[in-house]
Amino acid sequence: MSASFVPVPSGSDFPLENLPYAVFSTKTNPTHRICVAIGEHVLDLKAVAHLYPRSLQAALQAENLNALMGLSYEAWDIARTQTQKLLTKGSELAHNVDLVSHAVLSQEDISLHLPAQIGDYTDFYSSIHHATNVGIMFRGADNALMPNWRQLPVGYHGRASSVVVSGTPIRRPLGQTLPDGADKPVFGACKLLDFELEMAFFIGGPGNKLGEPISVDEAWKNVFGFTLMNDWSARDIQKWEYLPLGPFTAKNLGTTISPWVVTTAALKPFLLDNFPQDPQVLPYLQQSAPFNFDINLEVSLKPSNDNATIISKSNFKHLYWTPLQQIAHHTVTGCNLRPGDLMASGTISGETPDSYGSLLELCWKGTKTVELQGGKTRKFLHDYDEVIIRGYCEREGLRIGFGECAGQVLPARPIPGQ
Amino acid sequence: MSASFVPVPSGSDFPLENLPYAVFSTKTNPTHRICVAIGEHVLDLKAVAHLYPRSLQAALQAENLNALMGLSYEAWDIARTQTQKLLTKGSELAHNVDLVSHAVLSQEDISLHLPAQIGDYTDFYSSIHHATNVGIMFRGADNALMPNWRQLPVGYHGRASSVVVSGTPIRRPLGQTLPDGADKPVFGACKLLDFELEMAFFIGGPGNKLGEPISVDEAWKNVFGFTLMNDWSARDIQKWEYLPLGPFTAKNLGTTISPWVVTTAALKPFLLDNFPQDPQVLPYLQQSAPFNFDINLEVSLKPSNDNATIISKSNFKHLYWTPLQQIAHHTVTGCNLRPGDLMASGTISGETPDSYGSLLELCWKGTKTVELQGGKTRKFLHDYDEVIIRGYCEREGLRIGFGECAGQVLPARPIPGQ
Repeated sequence: MSASFVPVPSGSDFPLENLPYAVFSTKTNPTHRICVAIGEHVLDLKAVAHLYPRSLQAALQAENLNALMGLSYEAWDIARTQTQKLLTKGSELAHNVDLVSHAVLSQEDISLHLPAQIGDYTDFYSSIHHATNVGIMFRGADNALMPNWRQLPVGYHGRASSVVVSGTPIRRPLGQTLPDGADKPVFGACKLLDFELEMAFFIGGPGNKLGEPISVDEAWKNVFGFTLMNDWSARDIQKWEYLPLGPFTAKNLGTTISPWVVTTAALKPFLLDNFPQDPQVLPYLQQSAPFNFDINLEVSLKPSNDNATIISKSNFKHLYWTPLQQIAHHTVTGCNLRPGDLMASGTISGETPDSYGSLLELCWKGTKTVELQGGKTRKFLHDYDEVIIRGYCEREGLRIGFGECAGQVLPARPIPGQ
Repeated sequence: MSASFVPVPSGSDFPLENLPYAVFSTKTNPTHRICVAIGEHVLDLKAVAHLYPRSLQAALQAENLNALMGLSYEAWDIARTQTQKLLTKGSELAHNVDLVSHAVLSQEDISLHLPAQIGDYTDFYSSIHHATNVGIMFRGADNALMPNWRQLPVGYHGRASSVVVSGTPIRRPLGQTLPDGADKPVFGACKLLDFELEMAFFIGGPGNKLGEPISVDEAWKNVFGFTLMNDWSARDIQKWEYLPLGPFTAKNLGTTISPWVVTTAALKPFLLDNFPQDPQVLPYLQQSAPFNFDINLEVSLKPSNDNATIISKSNFKHLYWTPLQQIAHHTVTGCNLRPGDLMASGTISGETPDSYGSLLELCWKGTKTVELQGGKTRKFLHDYDEVIIRGYCEREGLRIGFGECAGQVLPARPIPGQ
């Protein structure tokens, strides 16, 4: 591919082969609008929408990605091809200095927002290493995985309203917990605040009607693109509340995603075979084509006024269940999906302790510590700690990056009446 | 109160004291718009919006109730008072024959839609009789209620996309189940399809920001109004999938609500003391003012080509946890609520077997049958069964009704490849 007329520094997450979408605004124009990243800049797609086929223009002029997500995969390909063409050296756009001057903006001069209005957010539990670790800690090695775990992609409905974009501070929650050995719960600030390293994908395509499942073979048409996610978790609150209906207030305190949506098309060079599944799953979950990706993931923890330390290195490829199986299972009883719905992987842990995707696992339920630069240690998150998740694919000089998903922990509010 | 110029038949759910909101369209005008019910008619609020204070007009001209919900409780009161004034005999509107002729429509001539765009839907589990019954069936009488049940209103995030309006058919789902005694799951049509008698309320007011809980004393400002709900449940699918993260595909096959939103103001004459709570709850859940209501609920089951039989009579007052406690708990860790969010009660069962709110309980896990008119019986729902939930408050000649929440079971789709 010829290079872009917008400079792309070596090692950038955002070469011409990536072009992740985001929603942005500027100080001088607070209207939310769509862009793609290129190097350290963005291309304002609203400003150049007239250079695309007419059928795409309304979606490219919208204030979020829902309309674009709601088009077909063929339309996404046309948009991607045209954006690559426009950003290539010597293009029609490159020669239009006036248009370039207001359509190509430095990432330093923009604010990024949630990429879509998220209709519903679902969180799966699809990493076998994570599910096994949690199972061992709470139920012992003999019953680590529930009997259903290898038969279906376990998941639950999350809270869409509390999904926020990278950079949004997360307040340590107040809540109800049962102290060890106590017979009555207490109210106070969460003591076991954790992150969860996840990835998520946005549903695209026209969606399906209630009562009409999406087959595993057709599901790829509904995957628009991927983001990084931190599913902040209040472990002490979760432990007390989650029986029998699952996590609730321990999770809806905030869920952070990265602003950039990396399309499935950009990830194609990094396709991998699916994770081997044993026993064989039921026919409605049997997937012939690969839909697994080699995406390096890392988590950094940065204490207040100190340097960041990488505390985990994992990879998307460790997921036992694929996004296509997740879609097929999610809709099997008839649930309708809509463009802009968000589906998260669950914590992505690898096999080895340095690849675990949560402090719960890294510190093995508080029995170990994580060492940080400068001699500090952690079991769970402290106030003002910042957690930064990064992700990238890399091979033979091609790097497709996700940018970062970051958030800082703010201290809890005072308890009312105290 | 003087009577309305629109006739209200004796025993109507919709006298001048009720005025529930809905969203409707007509054959000649498919635009969705807001109305209130009066007797067997509706008043098209878009058509009369100019007769309201300017600050309300945009919300009354909207295509759903979200904007009106997003105003304050003071604004809701102003709207209600003005609607009552307009509909009273001898009013400005009553004299405007031309306006009445196109703003007052027979309910037979309109289609009703979902009243709001539901941002998030939460389902609680707040009936102590229901939770106890389910606990006895699945864990035995000694461990019927989980230790957390009396300490916090247990709830979980549901699926907003699959909430549908009364009258929408519900297809019997296909899904994965573990037959009794089997060691491998099977795929097929749900055999234990059930209803759940619930009520739900819509969140109103400006909502809260992420990280800023709503106190139990302020929560009433966020309750816009109530609907009936049927939380259709695939019991066999639920049993296999729900550990450890809660119900998922067993519930997202469809959730039906009634089209009419009965405002909190209309329910005020039916306020009751809250359900006594023992042990005393933590301070953030202690609620001084009553926010419980005497709402009669009944469930009818109508087999195909046969008459309906009332199979359960329950009451909203059986709920252990109030809507205000539900809001305080939902937001305690910082979860943000938005106007149009839907909060459901969970199955509302009374103390006696004739007041149980699900077939699971009425048939006690399949060990008994429910008798229908004409000698038919049921354990779980058959294809083409229609379930109709009705609700009303009644005292001293005043009846505030909710209309009905109905849905018919369609047969499962064929299994792909069979």
